[in-house]
Amino acid sequence: MTQLEELKTLLAEISDLTAVSQLVSWDKETQMPKGGAASRANQLSTLARLLHQKNTSSEIKNLLTALEPELGNKDSLDGALIRLLRLEFERRSKLPTDFVADFAKARSEAGTVWEASRHQNNWAAFLPHLEKMFSMARRSADYYGYDSHPYDALLWDYDPGLKTADIKQIFADVRTFTVPLLERIVAAGEKVDYSVLTRSFPLEAQRAFSLEVAQAFGYDLQHGRLDVTAHPFATNFSKDDVRITTRFDEHYFPMAFYGVLHEAGHAMYEQNTADELRRTPLARGAWSTAHESQSRLWENLVGRSSGFWQHWFHLAQKHFPQALHDVDAATMYKLVNRVKPSLIRVEADELTYNLHIMLRFELELAIFEDKLKVSELPEAWNAKMQEYLGVTPPDYASGVMQDIHWSAGLFAYFPTYSLGNILSVQLFNKASSQMGDLNAMFARGEYQPLLHWLTHAVLRHGKTYLPPELIQKATGEPLSAKYYLAYLEQKFSGIYGL
Amino acid sequence: MTQLEELKTLLAEISDLTAVSQLVSWDKETQMPKGGAASRANQLSTLARLLHQKNTSSEIKNLLTALEPELGNKDSLDGALIRLLRLEFERRSKLPTDFVADFAKARSEAGTVWEASRHQNNWAAFLPHLEKMFSMARRSADYYGYDSHPYDALLWDYDPGLKTADIKQIFADVRTFTVPLLERIVAAGEKVDYSVLTRSFPLEAQRAFSLEVAQAFGYDLQHGRLDVTAHPFATNFSKDDVRITTRFDEHYFPMAFYGVLHEAGHAMYEQNTADELRRTPLARGAWSTAHESQSRLWENLVGRSSGFWQHWFHLAQKHFPQALHDVDAATMYKLVNRVKPSLIRVEADELTYNLHIMLRFELELAIFEDKLKVSELPEAWNAKMQEYLGVTPPDYASGVMQDIHWSAGLFAYFPTYSLGNILSVQLFNKASSQMGDLNAMFARGEYQPLLHWLTHAVLRHGKTYLPPELIQKATGEPLSAKYYLAYLEQKFSGIYGL
Repeated sequence: MTQLEELKTLLAEISDLTAVSQLVSWDKETQMPKGGAASRANQLSTLARLLHQKNTSSEIKNLLTALEPELGNKDSLDGALIRLLRLEFERRSKLPTDFVADFAKARSEAGTVWEASRHQNNWAAFLPHLEKMFSMARRSADYYGYDSHPYDALLWDYDPGLKTADIKQIFADVRTFTVPLLERIVAAGEKVDYSVLTRSFPLEAQRAFSLEVAQAFGYDLQHGRLDVTAHPFATNFSKDDVRITTRFDEHYFPMAFYGVLHEAGHAMYEQNTADELRRTPLARGAWSTAHESQSRLWENLVGRSSGFWQHWFHLAQKHFPQALHDVDAATMYKLVNRVKPSLIRVEADELTYNLHIMLRFELELAIFEDKLKVSELPEAWNAKMQEYLGVTPPDYASGVMQDIHWSAGLFAYFPTYSLGNILSVQLFNKASSQMGDLNAMFARGEYQPLLHWLTHAVLRHGKTYLPPELIQKATGEPLSAKYYLAYLEQKFSGIYGL
Repeated sequence: MTQLEELKTLLAEISDLTAVSQLVSWDKETQMPKGGAASRANQLSTLARLLHQKNTSSEIKNLLTALEPELGNKDSLDGALIRLLRLEFERRSKLPTDFVADFAKARSEAGTVWEASRHQNNWAAFLPHLEKMFSMARRSADYYGYDSHPYDALLWDYDPGLKTADIKQIFADVRTFTVPLLERIVAAGEKVDYSVLTRSFPLEAQRAFSLEVAQAFGYDLQHGRLDVTAHPFATNFSKDDVRITTRFDEHYFPMAFYGVLHEAGHAMYEQNTADELRRTPLARGAWSTAHESQSRLWENLVGRSSGFWQHWFHLAQKHFPQALHDVDAATMYKLVNRVKPSLIRVEADELTYNLHIMLRFELELAIFEDKLKVSELPEAWNAKMQEYLGVTPPDYASGVMQDIHWSAGLFAYFPTYSLGNILSVQLFNKASSQMGDLNAMFARGEYQPLLHWLTHAVLRHGKTYLPPELIQKATGEPLSAKYYLAYLEQKFSGIYGL
């Protein structure tokens, strides 16, 4: 075996174990009987320990050092592999193994408590676990090290190279644009009867219709499946087994439907990474901003387009004859694009969605800057909700406890949703410039050409490129919010007749 | 950390990984999309490799050697742990790691092909995989080494100490007894209308009723769940998460129902091992004979008793009002105890069941003795079916391809089902001698006292004792078929008025 083959053998083993760890987590969320939680936390901790040992082993280190002179700067897959591995190796080596194992166990326990206490609206039960998550994340940041802000150290996991200061600037621009547009929309008033969406949409029909659409987009159920969880997510154990989850509300159609399209967007990313990346660290969608660009693209730019509803409305009517008998495609388009400040991020419209993200970003920053205590989060949350969106959560479950992320120790993740929105439009515009009128394609029920374009431009590369390189390569320029803001202006001016 | 603590830390990690490997296999059978099979085989192979490395590591060896002088002969849990570990360590160390990983991969692939080709009745597609399973099992036996028969080397995994010659003797006794009893039953003729059992039993009601009974026996669904698979099984990832599967046929009530009771028997074993065995190799039910004694006990000695149906029949009628409206408890008892030579082992009556086992045992022996080729199995199978049971399978699926075991490389497992039958009655008799009339208890709906007795006598010990010790300890004598044969004689004389 050459040294490169030796390295790839080790990486294949790590890749398998990583997949197994993902599967064990998926099972915890979707299948595990409640009584299995304590043992499951041990299992996840053991896997995390083992993976950390393997990822930071002297074998990996020595092979990396031996191969770097030849391959390190090469513009090839092997070169990209060596480069990524060096970045990840250096970063991971900064964390002590015991800390990694303890964090995994604490995360698993916090997730279990979050799910139960959210259900019971019990902030007090969740608080000590959330405090532990924040303090362990802070310890991670200290281990990793940073120049100007501990948050920078955490951002790396989700978007290497991104800085807190960059996000602040982008968010300021988006906010400056969003607030007046929102005011114009509110002033315009509502012109359709939104209660249509809260009629009865039988769950089985919701499931069938959502999957029909997701499959038409390109989500392959021979290599995927849909389950129900408290908080929707996508996960994968190889490009051959990419699973999504959602949650259903009989009396609110968009919840499960757009949830499925969102997660299918993530899933299609994983299903379309190149075969030659299999069982290497390159074989995953490129970090969070790129990943969210795909979920948000299929959810919003496709699923909330007028063309989409021109094609799908009659099929939706067949699935929901009672709820939709007196509606038409043009109205449906307006219904699913209602702009209205609301409590729940994942159900927010495209415009106010980013305000939910900014709120989380600012609260996370305040805690990492020691300006806010974790115990003060509910009050701070509600105050910001009132300030940004003019609404106040009636309970913790629809307020500070709504998202799974913090319970899973995922801090610095949220900003990538808004960056994903921005990137989704930038990619969409590039695709349109090369493919013509995408909305017309959607109206004809054609989605494969767009998936094909995205696969070629983004998906197939996995983690071969760092985010700025990938964006440059796919769109010919750096990440820019201008397309996104223009899109919002145009779309909602049209819908609300501004 | 003392050396003992150090060893237990290593064993806890191994225990977690073993659990994870079980979970990954469970997911493959129950949840995995079909397209995930190839990647899953890699993942299972990697886990097998890693577990083998950890189980045979020099750390384990050195700690074992250091601790043996003090603990090796001690009559304590730590002593039992050291003893078991030495036995398993020596055995495992004989297998090369690559072979273990390759076998795991081949098993996973064979299982996938078995399920698909059984469904298509395609023997030719399965044959090369089955040949591989036999030849790899044979290689295992050669690595392990043996005195008189390669089959002895394989038996160790399922019942350490058991010899091929012992099984031959016991099976000869059982057969000598069974054949004339079967002839008397056939001569007596059938007196009830068995078509009742093939009426419509709606699946949801089957599921609900089966689980109601299993829970009444003591299967804890807070720490368990039921799924559907081609071949029923039980598995566990800790005593806190013990899952069972079954398969349903709307027009054959006993299939799913007794399948659930059987697997619940296995599951209750695992759920009732002692807490102090957690995360050690002792924390599993004691090998296969003891395990099958529990599944067969709850399935047959409880679930097919007259007392059982006295209590449950009215509840069954509520679940299946149409199918059971013109039946009574006494008839139901006869219906579920019909003795009739048939094709499928897991649905066979208590009497002919052992003939199915003998057939498999003899075919396995013939192959390991090079008297039969794997390719000749279907013919040999059908000939023996005709000889022992007077029936001939119409297809491979209900003949040589019916069981999952061979596709999973499980050879030498089948005999433990019959030994489990024998042990189940020996335990049941011991329990009766101490607790009084168990059938009367079942008629009152009382099952916890029996579970409690079994837990005390058998379950809680996990793998603390080797099978002969456990049997001696629980019943006061070695394994003996006399109780079992007397039970069969009495039960079926009564039912058939012999």
